Amino acid sequence: MRRFVTERVKNLLRTTNSLSSSLNMSSSSAVTVDSINPKVLKCEYAVRGEIVTQAQRLQQELQQKPGSHPFDEILYCNIGNPQSLGQKPITYFREVLALCDHPPLLDLSETEALFSADAIQRAWNILDQIPGRATGAYSHSQGVQGLRDSIAAGIAARDGFPADPNDIFLTDGASPAVHMMMQLLIRSDKDGILCPIPQYPLYSASIALHGGTLVPYYLDEATGWGLEISDVKKQLEDARSKGITVRALVVINPGNPTGQVLAEDNQRAVAEFCKNENLVLLADEVYQENVYVEDKKFHSFKKIARSMGYGEKDISLVSFQSVSKGYYGECGKRGGYMEITGFGADVREQIYKVASVNLCSNISGQVLASLVMNPPKVGDESYESFLAEKDGILSSMARRAKMLEDAFNSLEGVTCNKAEGAMYLFPRLHLPKKAIEVAEAAKTAPDAFYARRLLEATGIVVVPGSGFGQVPGTWHIRCTILPPEEKIPAVISRLTAFHQAFMAEFHD
Amino acid sequence: MRRFVTERVKNLLRTTNSLSSSLNMSSSSAVTVDSINPKVLKCEYAVRGEIVTQAQRLQQELQQKPGSHPFDEILYCNIGNPQSLGQKPITYFREVLALCDHPPLLDLSETEALFSADAIQRAWNILDQIPGRATGAYSHSQGVQGLRDSIAAGIAARDGFPADPNDIFLTDGASPAVHMMMQLLIRSDKDGILCPIPQYPLYSASIALHGGTLVPYYLDEATGWGLEISDVKKQLEDARSKGITVRALVVINPGNPTGQVLAEDNQRAVAEFCKNENLVLLADEVYQENVYVEDKKFHSFKKIARSMGYGEKDISLVSFQSVSKGYYGECGKRGGYMEITGFGADVREQIYKVASVNLCSNISGQVLASLVMNPPKVGDESYESFLAEKDGILSSMARRAKMLEDAFNSLEGVTCNKAEGAMYLFPRLHLPKKAIEVAEAAKTAPDAFYARRLLEATGIVVVPGSGFGQVPGTWHIRCTILPPEEKIPAVISRLTAFHQAFMAEFHD
Repeated sequence: MRRFVTERVKNLLRTTNSLSSSLNMSSSSAVTVDSINPKVLKCEYAVRGEIVTQAQRLQQELQQKPGSHPFDEILYCNIGNPQSLGQKPITYFREVLALCDHPPLLDLSETEALFSADAIQRAWNILDQIPGRATGAYSHSQGVQGLRDSIAAGIAARDGFPADPNDIFLTDGASPAVHMMMQLLIRSDKDGILCPIPQYPLYSASIALHGGTLVPYYLDEATGWGLEISDVKKQLEDARSKGITVRALVVINPGNPTGQVLAEDNQRAVAEFCKNENLVLLADEVYQENVYVEDKKFHSFKKIARSMGYGEKDISLVSFQSVSKGYYGECGKRGGYMEITGFGADVREQIYKVASVNLCSNISGQVLASLVMNPPKVGDESYESFLAEKDGILSSMARRAKMLEDAFNSLEGVTCNKAEGAMYLFPRLHLPKKAIEVAEAAKTAPDAFYARRLLEATGIVVVPGSGFGQVPGTWHIRCTILPPEEKIPAVISRLTAFHQAFMAEFHD
Repeated sequence: MRRFVTERVKNLLRTTNSLSSSLNMSSSSAVTVDSINPKVLKCEYAVRGEIVTQAQRLQQELQQKPGSHPFDEILYCNIGNPQSLGQKPITYFREVLALCDHPPLLDLSETEALFSADAIQRAWNILDQIPGRATGAYSHSQGVQGLRDSIAAGIAARDGFPADPNDIFLTDGASPAVHMMMQLLIRSDKDGILCPIPQYPLYSASIALHGGTLVPYYLDEATGWGLEISDVKKQLEDARSKGITVRALVVINPGNPTGQVLAEDNQRAVAEFCKNENLVLLADEVYQENVYVEDKKFHSFKKIARSMGYGEKDISLVSFQSVSKGYYGECGKRGGYMEITGFGADVREQIYKVASVNLCSNISGQVLASLVMNPPKVGDESYESFLAEKDGILSSMARRAKMLEDAFNSLEGVTCNKAEGAMYLFPRLHLPKKAIEVAEAAKTAPDAFYARRLLEATGIVVVPGSGFGQVPGTWHIRCTILPPEEKIPAVISRLTAFHQAFMAEFHD
């Protein structure tokens, strides 16, 4: 024992020495920033970029020294992460997850007092779909067959068109599915992907990581972030004239960061365009449950395409869905899927192979994906309480969106389109010339400059528009609608006071 | 309503038409197998390759027509997926997971009757570490800070050397961590990664997907799959002479598919080699809890390096760990981490950025990773039952490994090294000349031919050695030690009967 202790102390001393020496000396030179993959260097991801790092630093300072800043908490409006801002998970979903995690509960009579009867029944049904009821086993590379059956049934009920469980690939959130498609489609920087500008930076990051070329098309802010097919066509032709093979078109509907919901005829035009131009349509539909206006509805692109009579042979279509958004907001569970249609058997085999290299997505996320596509129905014990939770969340989101939209529009030099859907507002900042000059002198984008000043003054974290792309010479910020409703008035007054002071400071 | 129904029927008819037409016509030509990323085409993953597809087909046939094959179940020995073969999860881990999934349980007195007291306490502690107790929120891109603190403490207790929570990146199983490192290190096919042969095909697949070059070094079957530094050095020099920049060395310890556990002095030689040759040491340590022999122990490469006095400045080291292996075998939870040391701040920032693009790994997997690195301790209420479950699993694995090893060695023309660790045996098949000729005439690797015949005759699924790499002209299969212990005698007699018939059929 004594010898062991001595050995341990010696080891710790050695380590302390090598640790302290590492403070003075650089780390091993096997990898330097000059010798890593340049595609990694090129990739950017503003949603968790510099401004968030600074926010985390401020948060630490607040914890260590309360009162050290003119605010007492950091409010993360940079990311669509509802539960981090206090949104409660849907009870029924979590009941089912807990029972699937620990199935012996199902054999105990006490469980009936703690869980709703339909959650218990659903857990049994789900376990019956998992071979050997083994929630701790790798599943089929595309996800548990029975869960894919449920998801396909949910899609069919949503769209009024059949869905095939073999077209579903369950993934850890939507991001890995997007990466998988980019990996499949991009051969070199001569392959292009049409992306909306502004876009969710997962797309630009993924295209950069896979070495492709982002071909931008601009959403028209003046018409509520309208998607003009004529502009898309112009950009496509322009890219082709430069020798780029454009492989796919990304549409985010409802929009991120713009919050717009596409009109049905607009969607039809997109589908027709992709068919005629032989482009894969990559439809980011993760906000399908987040629509806040009476006059707009979510329609999946598959429904649109099928209702136009387009089948497998006409259009290659991928729909991405996630458990992170909607009213559920289960970001931490990393569940999601893609539904792929219009791909040949040999190409599908390749997608299956790539999915197999990562074995499968996490089973809790798979279960949750099957639940969000098949929530409780009328007559189920949990239905009323489920509906109350769901409606409570969505109607509050709608109110918060409206309050924040009005607040932005009441600010001098700020115009903000309606958040018809998704979880974001993307107001445009008409900044004073002096503010732009000061920012540019500091080699900072003017909206990043504004966002940093906002953070330092109020603790509110937003993402500069430059992280999403915008028409050159325009400046925006993306702000989520997710702070708790009771805090919105305070958020608005902090924002307003900051903005007035900022405008006064930089007045022309 | 009537109109709606009519519309729906019309839609369904339309779809049926387009579906049936798709049976006759090919799918959309936006993507063909000739126009996808050739790196995807090149990648192979034998563990879920052809033989598994065939097994799934046979399983369906058995379900549809019982008695249609000379066996009544498919036994998946192709993959280290313990719970799919009946292994039960560790109760304590699942109790904590269920409570974290549905925290309102913690406020109910009935919960005390259903969960152990220390699981309840641990769930509270974990929830306290998660900001806002929000298990449904995205975490920090590297994982929840408090969980990384626990994991670092677990590593320090294991190694006797300190670990830094900021060096931990939590991931959805170990695979995404391996991909992340390959993505970082590989710039082109002029960048090489030294991999053992035989290797786990995640490495070859990941290197292919990222466009690098696999530089093989051979484990020596004759010395129990020994790792000869002189051979590694020869391969390194050979690669360099061909203009390859070798960036990293992969070591899998305990070995997959080989089951060997490296001796300490061998590990020291590897660490010294990587330091001297300026290679990143990628240490796959996911089988760290799976050691079955008295005379070998698992030592992490970080412990080895630190005990040699190597600090941050001396060696770049990545250790991969997963919740899928060990005695826990929680494959479906997709939890894991990598611990990176010896990288400069600027390189770490790039790794952080890539992790951020995928937001975070699933929180249940993160929780589980913190649990496996900090299981119940002496004195905890669950300790005795936990230990009984753990020892029960590990001692049964050891017995199963030994029984299967003896069985393989008793077969004519088969030699099998000891499974000192991990979950696999990798017996060598000295096949009759006639069998090799028949296989090669059918353009099949002789071991793949053997594996297919084995499957067709017995329902036992193994992976041909050609999927892992082997010395040219030698043939192997990889077989897990995971069938339930009570089935092992039957497995062995089916295997023996098949082998005898096979050898008789192809006798010279």
